[in-house]
Amino acid sequence: MRIDILTVLPEMLESPLGCSILKRAQDKGLAEIVVHNLRDYSTNKHRKVDDYPFGGEAGMVMQIEPIDRAIAHLKSQRNYDEVIFTSPDGEVFDQPMANSLSMLDNIIILAGHYKGIDYRIREHLITKEISIGDYVLTGGELPAAIIADAIVRLIPGAIGDEQSALSDSFQDNLLAPPVYTRPADYNGWKVPEILLSGHQAKIDEWKHEQALERTRLLRPDLLK
Amino acid sequence: MRIDILTVLPEMLESPLGCSILKRAQDKGLAEIVVHNLRDYSTNKHRKVDDYPFGGEAGMVMQIEPIDRAIAHLKSQRNYDEVIFTSPDGEVFDQPMANSLSMLDNIIILAGHYKGIDYRIREHLITKEISIGDYVLTGGELPAAIIADAIVRLIPGAIGDEQSALSDSFQDNLLAPPVYTRPADYNGWKVPEILLSGHQAKIDEWKHEQALERTRLLRPDLLK
Repeated sequence: MRIDILTVLPEMLESPLGCSILKRAQDKGLAEIVVHNLRDYSTNKHRKVDDYPFGGEAGMVMQIEPIDRAIAHLKSQRNYDEVIFTSPDGEVFDQPMANSLSMLDNIIILAGHYKGIDYRIREHLITKEISIGDYVLTGGELPAAIIADAIVRLIPGAIGDEQSALSDSFQDNLLAPPVYTRPADYNGWKVPEILLSGHQAKIDEWKHEQALERTRLLRPDLLK
Repeated sequence: MRIDILTVLPEMLESPLGCSILKRAQDKGLAEIVVHNLRDYSTNKHRKVDDYPFGGEAGMVMQIEPIDRAIAHLKSQRNYDEVIFTSPDGEVFDQPMANSLSMLDNIIILAGHYKGIDYRIREHLITKEISIGDYVLTGGELPAAIIADAIVRLIPGAIGDEQSALSDSFQDNLLAPPVYTRPADYNGWKVPEILLSGHQAKIDEWKHEQALERTRLLRPDLLK
């Protein structure tokens, strides 16, 4: 799949997109992630992309023209399944949405910055608004990286052991059971004996019980 | 405030912590963010920090010892208000939690990676588990950056115009109203006339109505 990210701060995305699984997926040709500087689409001689809001609000607003030009340029090269805007008032991002998005071919993610983007962009150019949670951030760059990370790791081959993704939290509507590794006794803090028993059927049963119990206790809403 | 982040992938955090408001807040001395490589606290000659899970799960698990040593080292230098672990089954991060955390002096954020961390770490060393949302990521590095970003921008002086943070979404339990900037007419897409009227009282009333209407439509849960 291909993900195009539009931003005024391309440098903020360098290390998140250049590390770990996102890097490996790109190296393997499973995902192509291209970051575009919106200032390259400004017609202003100072490469300005924002202006004061109408009606006297504090803060600056991203202008429609550079964003419209960037999206039109990309759309002239290929078809896009979604043009996504990251915003705290968007549809709340979750694992089922990550699963759906991971099956698309080409998406654009527009990262907002400053006080917000001209609302006409949202009305006319955006096809899907996504919130990664009920909190306010400096900009949409980290949310764009979060969405790219959550999606790309689901592409077959992106993580070494596919079994590992299947047993993650949420994939079966249960939180993951506790995990433990060596040493079995650390300063008197011990690993549950069942895990050292070698009885795989009993271990699997214990894990399922733990997953259920943790979900009931911490996130009963997932069981509804 | 001071934020210490523990990770096996310090390079992933370089650009998010080195840009924009997080950089400026550090330059101004409002926040100190220190990233620690957990491998520096391994006693293994290959600087290993993970091992196979007990009970035959797929994936690798982060070991207790390097994390215990890193936290003990930091605690020997100053008092910490919270030792936070980012995990999809933690308490869901939101703006009130960001407000509370922004008033603390020193916090540690442990970023998990691989299949998870030895559960004894969560039982004995962590004081607060935070989830940034119901989705699974490559690791806790991006969530740590998200939490740092959401918190630090609330520290007085971190963003240029404090008025701007106060009128963000969620701060008054309402989504932000639409914003617009020049040009007033872009290819026939027009800015609402009221915003061009110059009647500030009517404009403020319109904004409040829009904020209420958008919240009712998109996030009625915030009004409960």
